[in-house]
Amino acid sequence: MTTSTQIQLVSRPVGTPTTEDFATVQVELPELGRDEVRVRNEYVSVDPYMRGRMSEAKSYVPPFDLGETMTGGAVGRVVESTSDALPVGSAVLSSYGWRDVAQGPAAHFSPLPETELPLSVFLGAAGMTGLTAYAGLKRVAGLREGDVVFISGAAGAVGSIAGQVARKLGASRVIGSAGSAEKVALLKDRYGYDDAFNYKDAPVRKQLREVTPDGIDVYFDNVGGDHLEAALDRLNRGGRAALCGAISQYNSTERTAGPDNMANLVKNSLTLEGFIVGQHQDLQGEFAEKMTGWLADGSVVFDETVVDGIGNSVRAFLDMMNGANTGKMLVRP
Amino acid sequence: MTTSTQIQLVSRPVGTPTTEDFATVQVELPELGRDEVRVRNEYVSVDPYMRGRMSEAKSYVPPFDLGETMTGGAVGRVVESTSDALPVGSAVLSSYGWRDVAQGPAAHFSPLPETELPLSVFLGAAGMTGLTAYAGLKRVAGLREGDVVFISGAAGAVGSIAGQVARKLGASRVIGSAGSAEKVALLKDRYGYDDAFNYKDAPVRKQLREVTPDGIDVYFDNVGGDHLEAALDRLNRGGRAALCGAISQYNSTERTAGPDNMANLVKNSLTLEGFIVGQHQDLQGEFAEKMTGWLADGSVVFDETVVDGIGNSVRAFLDMMNGANTGKMLVRP
Repeated sequence: MTTSTQIQLVSRPVGTPTTEDFATVQVELPELGRDEVRVRNEYVSVDPYMRGRMSEAKSYVPPFDLGETMTGGAVGRVVESTSDALPVGSAVLSSYGWRDVAQGPAAHFSPLPETELPLSVFLGAAGMTGLTAYAGLKRVAGLREGDVVFISGAAGAVGSIAGQVARKLGASRVIGSAGSAEKVALLKDRYGYDDAFNYKDAPVRKQLREVTPDGIDVYFDNVGGDHLEAALDRLNRGGRAALCGAISQYNSTERTAGPDNMANLVKNSLTLEGFIVGQHQDLQGEFAEKMTGWLADGSVVFDETVVDGIGNSVRAFLDMMNGANTGKMLVRP
Repeated sequence: MTTSTQIQLVSRPVGTPTTEDFATVQVELPELGRDEVRVRNEYVSVDPYMRGRMSEAKSYVPPFDLGETMTGGAVGRVVESTSDALPVGSAVLSSYGWRDVAQGPAAHFSPLPETELPLSVFLGAAGMTGLTAYAGLKRVAGLREGDVVFISGAAGAVGSIAGQVARKLGASRVIGSAGSAEKVALLKDRYGYDDAFNYKDAPVRKQLREVTPDGIDVYFDNVGGDHLEAALDRLNRGGRAALCGAISQYNSTERTAGPDNMANLVKNSLTLEGFIVGQHQDLQGEFAEKMTGWLADGSVVFDETVVDGIGNSVRAFLDMMNGANTGKMLVRP
């Protein structure tokens, strides 16, 4: 009999989650039924959107159930199978998140192509993370040739891909913000940003103004709060903001005042559009084709921050929320 | 020789404008040159957007010049002409705003059709005001058959038309807010709103929640501030807000905190889009055809608040900013 180590949510966090909100359990796995597979997860994803699901409030995805194992993106290989479609050795993607061994109907696992790239890329650059960047820039913000683009949280999982995708889509200038000098250097030296700043150095409003003398046309928001406010100051007439996340507010227990310059929306005919990647799954085909090409020829690069041990999933999640990661944050069970 | 009485801006108001910011002057008009007309204005428009132009800050239209006559929409009839295109008696629309007699090149005046409707309608329901309502609902908010629509400032010039246009475009339910019990009654009894509330009675957030048990799909914003915040609470997944104005903030001298629920944009995939009617002039043809039909058959009604005497233009403007008008505010020189 095989054991699966799994992380469960046991209480709903108020404010910043703590390790006490979770429990690590050992689950004895039954024999496989018909058309089932057992999968050893190689990488498990921790993502900002999971914070929303830990609360009871309705969101675009239902809350996690208390006493159930945390679900989310995971990639691995089939180690036991009663399915003709997914023989032992197959690489698969599933949403059986925070566990080292996943087991269930074969239909719950999607086969992944064998490439030169590590499997983890299908959680990050070539997965939901990359599609988020691509859909947000291309469809939501309607990025056009020559646009000046600002991306907040630019060294994170989505942001590090978004800067490079913006360039591919024709941006004339790409500006980013991040939370340390090292990350700012990475934005400029590795991800091809034209300019970048550390948002902890001085007010975002001031720093953004200094690096965008001609304003911005597109804003890709991962942060919300002072970043969104600063962007509203700098968006040119007809400017568009794709709102992907507001990590600055996810742990907030109080209502936070919004931007003090909302009048700019009318004054400059701006558009703010919130989105989730799920609305744009129809772009998956065109995205996957382009991105695997860019990754293969090295014209798009990606980074991962990997934490070892499924028992460290909570720590990895909390570190990611605090910006400890560069690129995609992953747990290697 | 003919004299024109004109209102000029003489100082830039800080906060609420006062009569001291304006001067009434008598201008002696010269003989007509070639291809010119002299027009006796029958109605002059006062509009919220003019507050922005009184300040020096850049906006979507340049600021008014100090010591120059206030420009803006006006309709009248030609009383003297050296133009074959515009003989004496022609009804015309111009942007020679706050004056009783306007004079200039014939090309600066647009001929208006002779209809059963008063000329004033080409400043209001069938003019820029009506087009603002139509473009905002149809194109900016993308109103679809069956949508629940909320309109703030619903008894104002744009709002009183917007509610009726929303119905024409297929809204299943139209909700409005206004600033007095009389206006609320008007919304329900005359403009066909399904429900309405007086925003002075209790917090907007609370009142809007009570009258929108199933949320809203489209918000047409004339007010900003607490109204926008309340709408963000009630907008359903994929909801759209057309931001037409923020009259609650036009006289503000301090930065005002924005909505405390901006996170709903991401959570519910909402779109906020600011617009000005000038971007949608291409809809003028289809709009004019439909609206003149609706006005002629009485299926769209309109109201006007008329102030007599060009010398009362400033008073009319200030009263309009305070919500003293029902429907379109006009000055009859």
